[in-house]
Amino acid sequence: MLKPPEHQVAGHQAREGQLGPLVDGSGRFYKPLQSDSRGEHEAAFYSSFSSDPRVPSHVRRFFPGFHGTQLLPASDGSGERPHLVLDDIFSSLLRPSVIDLKIGACTWPPNSPDNYLMKCLRKDLETTSLTLGFRISGLRVNTASGFYNPDKNQVKSYTSSSDVKRVLKKFVSSNPDSSSDPDCAFAAVVYGGSEGLLAQLLELKAWFEDQTLYHFYSVSVLVGYARDEVGKTRPLVKLVDFAHVVEGDGVIDHNFLGGLCSLIKFISEILIDPDEKFSSGCCLEESKRTPQLGIENGGLDE
Amino acid sequence: MLKPPEHQVAGHQAREGQLGPLVDGSGRFYKPLQSDSRGEHEAAFYSSFSSDPRVPSHVRRFFPGFHGTQLLPASDGSGERPHLVLDDIFSSLLRPSVIDLKIGACTWPPNSPDNYLMKCLRKDLETTSLTLGFRISGLRVNTASGFYNPDKNQVKSYTSSSDVKRVLKKFVSSNPDSSSDPDCAFAAVVYGGSEGLLAQLLELKAWFEDQTLYHFYSVSVLVGYARDEVGKTRPLVKLVDFAHVVEGDGVIDHNFLGGLCSLIKFISEILIDPDEKFSSGCCLEESKRTPQLGIENGGLDE
Repeated sequence: MLKPPEHQVAGHQAREGQLGPLVDGSGRFYKPLQSDSRGEHEAAFYSSFSSDPRVPSHVRRFFPGFHGTQLLPASDGSGERPHLVLDDIFSSLLRPSVIDLKIGACTWPPNSPDNYLMKCLRKDLETTSLTLGFRISGLRVNTASGFYNPDKNQVKSYTSSSDVKRVLKKFVSSNPDSSSDPDCAFAAVVYGGSEGLLAQLLELKAWFEDQTLYHFYSVSVLVGYARDEVGKTRPLVKLVDFAHVVEGDGVIDHNFLGGLCSLIKFISEILIDPDEKFSSGCCLEESKRTPQLGIENGGLDE
Repeated sequence: MLKPPEHQVAGHQAREGQLGPLVDGSGRFYKPLQSDSRGEHEAAFYSSFSSDPRVPSHVRRFFPGFHGTQLLPASDGSGERPHLVLDDIFSSLLRPSVIDLKIGACTWPPNSPDNYLMKCLRKDLETTSLTLGFRISGLRVNTASGFYNPDKNQVKSYTSSSDVKRVLKKFVSSNPDSSSDPDCAFAAVVYGGSEGLLAQLLELKAWFEDQTLYHFYSVSVLVGYARDEVGKTRPLVKLVDFAHVVEGDGVIDHNFLGGLCSLIKFISEILIDPDEKFSSGCCLEESKRTPQLGIENGGLDE
């Protein structure tokens, strides 16, 4: 009855011998607790967040509903294991297009041990996290002929702002798998409008300018859309993956907020001018870094 | 005729044997070009920025006016050296109170060499840069009995959000040198109002949400205030120190923007509730990092 979720675009996928999340097909998503402290930490976050009266209800809708933990047979065949019981956020949408965006220039909390910090930093340097304030972790786009679903190596190759802009255009195009320019056919209905992704991200931004409860390190914003039964396009924004959330301690989450503003700017530009040719046009010297961490410091390879 | 500026609160101060900036007492500030590439890089920034038509004039007022470079006798007695000729930003204010805030969780540009990256990262971890998105580099506050002017070691001890909030309160208090609570006597006239620091920072923020021209790594926001001839308090915001600015490449400066939003939140809270007792009140486990970089990795000591 339990099966791997169709719309998972990043992270470990459940299969024989591999631990991953499961769905029951009737609206619940079961995420296995990782055996190190991350699983417990994420459960503690959900438990704290879901009962925190300081979180406004219009913000709560950006988070999956939490229904405790439950012992279930793990997908890797290793026997029973505690799982977080969450809402299956895309279960109401048929064949949704989904993109997973890991937000924040810095993906490690300030209290991280050195080896974890260096591992994350290296990845932040290799991807667009440090330059753009977010990176694409995965995507799939519904097309007439199936799903456009770049594999991990393709996703790894998104290392420039123009790569990322192109993917954000493909995400709302009818020709994502074509080598010609993305047509942005759905940009207006998905990104634009009062219920579109931009409006939702701006609402989230307003909360992040003010909230000092949590700092959301290494959290993903999942954005998705699909047509409902009556043919109306339904855009959806959800935050997921809270294993590295820490207390806000009276300070706003400037790291998440900065990355969110950067994403908002990308989407705004696509809405304003879908056919824009990317132009940098500045006057300081060109500078491109070849990431070297792990060479000079040694022993930091995965 | 040239002398060290009175209101300098961070960085190397000009004196015999030490290179530092000079003022002429009639509105000009002379900053010696550092002999490595930083000096030239900062000159290139000023030159590019000051002639860039894409920078709106209401934003330009937050930057010192630039008047080219000039050969001048260096303060360290080493002979003639090129200096940036800038407006002496506080010359119109008598006995200004000044605070130097280095903005951004990350003070190194993504194209930095590893050794520079690690040196900056260590400092970002030791200070409040990573946790708060900015750090205090120095301050002086005008009092009835002279200046309250914490030395470098005191400034280094500002490692928590409550330390920083207390300093931002002292900055607008008549009793900054007292061990009792800062009275925030000038909070309303300095931080508040249509010409106050908060209003100015919000104007700057609006530009940073949109501008993709430059990324301002390791740039300081200097905020100052003093009474003018008719007794009116004049608050002033200026950005300084552009040796590590890089091209924006079509992306917003999410790192600066995040830190700026964090500073804005601190100041808003002081305005709303100057007597507030700091309360964290969250539910996740307490976590305080002891910075260790440089121990495990070796050879990174200054």
